[in-house]
Amino acid sequence: MKGMDNEGKTRDHSLTVTTELVLPNDANLLGNLLGGRLLHWIDIAGALAASRHSGGIVATIRMDPVEFKHPIYVGNIVSLTSYVTWTGRTSIETAVDTYAEDVLTEEKRFINKIYLIFVALDQNGAKRITPPLIPKTDEERREWAEAAARRGKK
Amino acid sequence: MKGMDNEGKTRDHSLTVTTELVLPNDANLLGNLLGGRLLHWIDIAGALAASRHSGGIVATIRMDPVEFKHPIYVGNIVSLTSYVTWTGRTSIETAVDTYAEDVLTEEKRFINKIYLIFVALDQNGAKRITPPLIPKTDEERREWAEAAARRGKK
Amino acid sequence: MKGMDNEGKTRDHSLTVTTELVLPNDANLLGNLLGGRLLHWIDIAGALAASRHSGGIVATIRMDPVEFKHPIYVGNIVSLTSYVTWTGRTSIETAVDTYAEDVLTEEKRFINKIYLIFVALDQNGAKRITPPLIPKTDEERREWAEAAARRGKK
Amino acid sequence: MKGMDNEGKTRDHSLTVTTELVLPNDANLLGNLLGGRLLHWIDIAGALAASRHSGGIVATIRMDPVEFKHPIYVGNIVSLTSYVTWTGRTSIETAVDTYAEDVLTEEKRFINKIYLIFVALDQNGAKRITPPLIPKTDEERREWAEAAARRGKK
Amino acid sequence: MKGMDNEGKTRDHSLTVTTELVLPNDANLLGNLLGGRLLHWIDIAGALAASRHSGGIVATIRMDPVEFKHPIYVGNIVSLTSYVTWTGRTSIETAVDTYAEDVLTEEKRFINKIYLIFVALDQNGAKRITPPLIPKTDEERREWAEAAARRGKK
Amino acid sequence: MKGMDNEGKTRDHSLTVTTELVLPNDANLLGNLLGGRLLHWIDIAGALAASRHSGGIVATIRMDPVEFKHPIYVGNIVSLTSYVTWTGRTSIETAVDTYAEDVLTEEKRFINKIYLIFVALDQNGAKRITPPLIPKTDEERREWAEAAARRGKK
Repeated sequence: MKGMDNEGKTRDHSLTVTTELVLPNDANLLGNLLGGRLLHWIDIAGALAASRHSGGIVATIRMDPVEFKHPIYVGNIVSLTSYVTWTGRTSIETAVDTYAEDVLTEEKRFINKIYLIFVALDQNGAKRITPPLIPKTDEERREWAEAAARRGKK
Repeated sequence: MKGMDNEGKTRDHSLTVTTELVLPNDANLLGNLLGGRLLHWIDIAGALAASRHSGGIVATIRMDPVEFKHPIYVGNIVSLTSYVTWTGRTSIETAVDTYAEDVLTEEKRFINKIYLIFVALDQNGAKRITPPLIPKTDEERREWAEAAARRGKK
Repeated sequence: MKGMDNEGKTRDHSLTVTTELVLPNDANLLGNLLGGRLLHWIDIAGALAASRHSGGIVATIRMDPVEFKHPIYVGNIVSLTSYVTWTGRTSIETAVDTYAEDVLTEEKRFINKIYLIFVALDQNGAKRITPPLIPKTDEERREWAEAAARRGKK
Repeated sequence: MKGMDNEGKTRDHSLTVTTELVLPNDANLLGNLLGGRLLHWIDIAGALAASRHSGGIVATIRMDPVEFKHPIYVGNIVSLTSYVTWTGRTSIETAVDTYAEDVLTEEKRFINKIYLIFVALDQNGAKRITPPLIPKTDEERREWAEAAARRGKK
Repeated sequence: MKGMDNEGKTRDHSLTVTTELVLPNDANLLGNLLGGRLLHWIDIAGALAASRHSGGIVATIRMDPVEFKHPIYVGNIVSLTSYVTWTGRTSIETAVDTYAEDVLTEEKRFINKIYLIFVALDQNGAKRITPPLIPKTDEERREWAEAAARRGKK
Repeated sequence: MKGMDNEGKTRDHSLTVTTELVLPNDANLLGNLLGGRLLHWIDIAGALAASRHSGGIVATIRMDPVEFKHPIYVGNIVSLTSYVTWTGRTSIETAVDTYAEDVLTEEKRFINKIYLIFVALDQNGAKRITPPLIPKTDEERREWAEAAARRGKK
């Protein structure tokens, strides 16, 4: 397994789903989920996918802009799906898609799709080479191309 | 949607995946995940599936015995998959399958499969009729039959 | 003290009382204590008694089935009494009795009595011999016999 | 029961024991329990006794000086015993005795004895008359006299 | 004070300083502060300034991109200074400047400067008119002009 | 910088401001901030100032009596300003001034001013010499004299 570290991995290899129940301490006086709590969940979701892809510890180096499209309430279920979209030599881009569900009405709303960049680290905290992502589908190749364009622009 | 509440739903409708990163406060002095923290995650995972299935609030009424087969460590990723296995008039049985991954070795170990029973509640806390589960596959029918047998024995 | 480690200890030696105030984050939308939070408190209460009895670190290896007989509400006081009921060579059974009090009505309700099994560990995480329990009263001898029967059945 | 509210209660009626396991987030870089975490546990322990004595909600109005005599470490068990020492018309004094145990050496050290004053509140947050404490033993009468002297001085 | 709500306020009126100690649960296996925990602190810091400026509840609607320039470690002190840079009719832009200090070396490093947009809400969750910011210094007028340009671009 | 450790530092060098938003889990059933949560924030605020002043780790050794003058509610903003008032050879006294703000009425109330004593520790937990405080203003010299008198009395 260790010898395979520089071979590529598919998106499915590290696809991560996280589900959170919004509790009172996650919300303001109106019962709206605090933006920062959602940002924390998004970062963890992205880090789990990057960590699974690269087979080791990662640290966040960038979060792209975040728009909060709809309020989320105490008692809602928040689900986050995260997956790798692009890899460099030691850096990994992940996307995190967030949805909020009202269990009473069964309405499920799209909240946002956020891109984050992580760096792979070894146990001393030095940068570590990550296995590349192997895009398989047209959609995965499009995400890769868009990520490369975003990275070139930054 | 409200009118559909007494129609059946499939297992896939409420299948829930949760992923947790084990942090230092989740562990004892040896860095082993505390049993109670895992029990808490299992209960929440089961409740999310039962809540999604029944379209409302649920409360735990029983957790079957839990065996902790392997230690889980700080830094491990714990994933929990929960799904409905059986429904009564107001009660819902869910199973929760738990795995622990070591991101450094990429080893993923089965921890346990736990059955819990929830009761569906309305907004006043009174019992509420739940839509039935419609088992689709042989495995889902087998799980239903086993759950019915467990329930008959209790 | 170290030399005494293999001598027996009484139930009173490790009897542990824990008291918790139910806060909003411990509860669902109806203000009912989450089952998983109570399971976490029960596990910690059992582990404290097993740790005090065996004079070292312990890890949970089994929790017997749990029935939640009554709802518990935000603002209630939950008290847990834990004590050793049986010991093997390296394993320890504890019972945890849980009660919930409504401070306004002063009503105190029995919630459940749960048996857990812990294993004694040394500082490297290897199994460690535990001092035996010395049952003193008829009730303690009855608990021991019942625990031995439960263990034999498993 | 409500009609009995102005009758006296004994110290034993509200005696409260709480037991805490010191986790990594409770400590500084040296692994010493943070002073503020212990103060939080002491306040909750005192409030539980005052709440049980007075049969309702209480709020802290004073904590006497606190000396931290010995460091407490991650993995230690902290036990707090709280009881009512004195009552006024709407105010209640409690004492909290704190001990820390090292489970490996089985050493148990006295940390401190702290006096706090609480006020009994009704459901609108207005002051509420508390049943008086009935001291039974010589030691309980001495605690009452000392509390009355402390209160006279303040 | 209520009558003044639509009159302008200066930056100093709502300037907010927050200071956090990085604890073990805030960090990954290497002891690096989790990116999401810092994002949570930044959001709260920005929300406190926006709430103080507008005299009421606010909700986050956008966080600009975040670069994590340096690792931050367990035991470091993180300080966040937040202030209003621009106001619209119901929306408020704040900047949050974050620094990390190593108390042993006394080194203090700039981490990042993040812009967030909040919307002012009334007690029913509807949009609420905010008093305008009155920039006083050249630097405050420059921040305002830059914020207006950022807003025009979005 | 290390060589300067025994030279004096001014009060401004370690002045610390912390700001907290009161969340539901911080409060009792009436929505009043728990006394112990405030004590925890006061201890951390004092420790941050003492740590910054002394350039290293500190532990709390005493908290002076605390009066809770006014209730603080969920949704209030609590601000704590902490600063060094006196130094001995290895001990440091800090004061913490606490205010609570209602963001809706913009009322800001003084809660209390608390003195704490910390001891400076090295990385092995042994006492460490702290640089002295250099009082600059008349008010700082008055605080020093009062602290010295308090210390002499204890």
